[in-house]
Amino acid sequence: MKDMLDSERSRAAEWFRTLRDEIVGAFEKLEDNHSDGPFAEMDAGRFEVTTTKRHSDDGSDAGGGLMSVMRGGRVFEKVGVNVSTVYGQLGPQAQKAMAARGVPGMEDDPSFWASGISLVAHMQNPHCPAVHMNTRMFWTPHAWWFGGGSDLNPCIEYDEDTAHFHATQKAHLDPHGTEHYPRLKEWADEYFYVPHRGRARGVGGIFMDDRNSGDWEADFTLTQDIGRAFLPAYVPLVEKRRVQAFTDADKDTQLVHRGLYAEYNLVYDRGTKFGLATGHDANAVLMSLPPLAKWV
Amino acid sequence: MKDMLDSERSRAAEWFRTLRDEIVGAFEKLEDNHSDGPFAEMDAGRFEVTTTKRHSDDGSDAGGGLMSVMRGGRVFEKVGVNVSTVYGQLGPQAQKAMAARGVPGMEDDPSFWASGISLVAHMQNPHCPAVHMNTRMFWTPHAWWFGGGSDLNPCIEYDEDTAHFHATQKAHLDPHGTEHYPRLKEWADEYFYVPHRGRARGVGGIFMDDRNSGDWEADFTLTQDIGRAFLPAYVPLVEKRRVQAFTDADKDTQLVHRGLYAEYNLVYDRGTKFGLATGHDANAVLMSLPPLAKWV
Repeated sequence: MKDMLDSERSRAAEWFRTLRDEIVGAFEKLEDNHSDGPFAEMDAGRFEVTTTKRHSDDGSDAGGGLMSVMRGGRVFEKVGVNVSTVYGQLGPQAQKAMAARGVPGMEDDPSFWASGISLVAHMQNPHCPAVHMNTRMFWTPHAWWFGGGSDLNPCIEYDEDTAHFHATQKAHLDPHGTEHYPRLKEWADEYFYVPHRGRARGVGGIFMDDRNSGDWEADFTLTQDIGRAFLPAYVPLVEKRRVQAFTDADKDTQLVHRGLYAEYNLVYDRGTKFGLATGHDANAVLMSLPPLAKWV
Repeated sequence: MKDMLDSERSRAAEWFRTLRDEIVGAFEKLEDNHSDGPFAEMDAGRFEVTTTKRHSDDGSDAGGGLMSVMRGGRVFEKVGVNVSTVYGQLGPQAQKAMAARGVPGMEDDPSFWASGISLVAHMQNPHCPAVHMNTRMFWTPHAWWFGGGSDLNPCIEYDEDTAHFHATQKAHLDPHGTEHYPRLKEWADEYFYVPHRGRARGVGGIFMDDRNSGDWEADFTLTQDIGRAFLPAYVPLVEKRRVQAFTDADKDTQLVHRGLYAEYNLVYDRGTKFGLATGHDANAVLMSLPPLAKWV
């Protein structure tokens, strides 16, 4: 079973890379076009791109990725887009966690392979919503699954923006069956919830994990469409809000909201936990943390 | 066994409250005396004091505490001093965690009682070190123990300050046996380490947990002396550094260092995990988070 899904894994990894290139291009275009409104006097931001390596205890090749971060742009205060393809042997703790999730065969062979894209954007203008998107494929000798999702995190909420974001997700999911959107929306409501604060971290979106319908092609296409929904769901909101004037109080609201975001990511986020526990580059794993955050 | 250590528990809780009063008084005095150097033109800071309640699922009395926070002082940018005495039944997850730590009898009776003081200070002047101190007593029907520690978190390190902080801890521990300081210092080096960043969060201090030598009086006095070491270890450093001029780059260094502190507290800190898992007031549990932090 070890060699199974070889070409499928390559295709998934290539897709995440293609999606990354599209998003990076679209975000730099947003920077170029921002010639009016707050921050327009600044230079257009550009991504800095660095390769990352996953650390393995025995020094063997463990995979890595490409971390792209834009800091201090005139639209994006900080945005990171990571792609990575990592592999090797899961440590005892991660094995246990996998077994607890129902992944079979971990005790026979703790090999794993995982590839994905992960994105978090923190915006200059507090009227522009922060956003998160992530899709991934996970493989072990005895199992594979896809996961992913996208959620909107405005500090100042606009019902029409929330409606557009959700409608775009739904439009991309419905061709795969109209059962997906309501289920994945509900899953996001559960997953992106901050129990110790008793509130959602944002206005939701979609979330899916452990996706294995038995049909790899179908699940891959579904995952691709979650990725394809991202730019049309998000870019129009930035286009609309980037020129709005804001107050010091609005910026303060944004910094406090980012504190909530940091809490969620450090305490609950599965990707963060997995990344830190498996020794991936901490700068890449924690790239999602806000440029500046406030706790009152 | 349920009624055991009744008066001891009262004495411990009273001591934590007494120590809190001393520290709050000393910190307000630092604010009053800061009439020269950066921020001297601001008003002297004062603590805001609120009572906190632990949430219990059935609405029964579950204890609570006193949260004292000073924000925007001229020496302290944000400092919190919490005391709490909480009790009730541990939930299934916390029971398992206790059993895994070797606490006996949790399956027979998951009752617990815990009292302690916890303090984190984030300073206006980046030359003044941030600091943490915490001491506590934990009780179950079949076990009791003390824990506590103190560590210094300067963003700009001064060897002489580190030496003074450690020497004061040692002077307070040595009367209990000269074996304590080296052991508790090493424990702090292990505990206040941020594995994903491959570095210590500060310049160390002392840390102790699961302290039960069989002699409650001796362990209580040891715990008290960890508390008594705090003001003489810390206040002279603030007195020395509060008037130093600093640059924007120094302040930036401080904000980034606070990001590391927030990461540690949200990902690893036992008190934070325990507090969030047992339903204590999130504002009190997370009072340690910095007023402003930066991630590059």
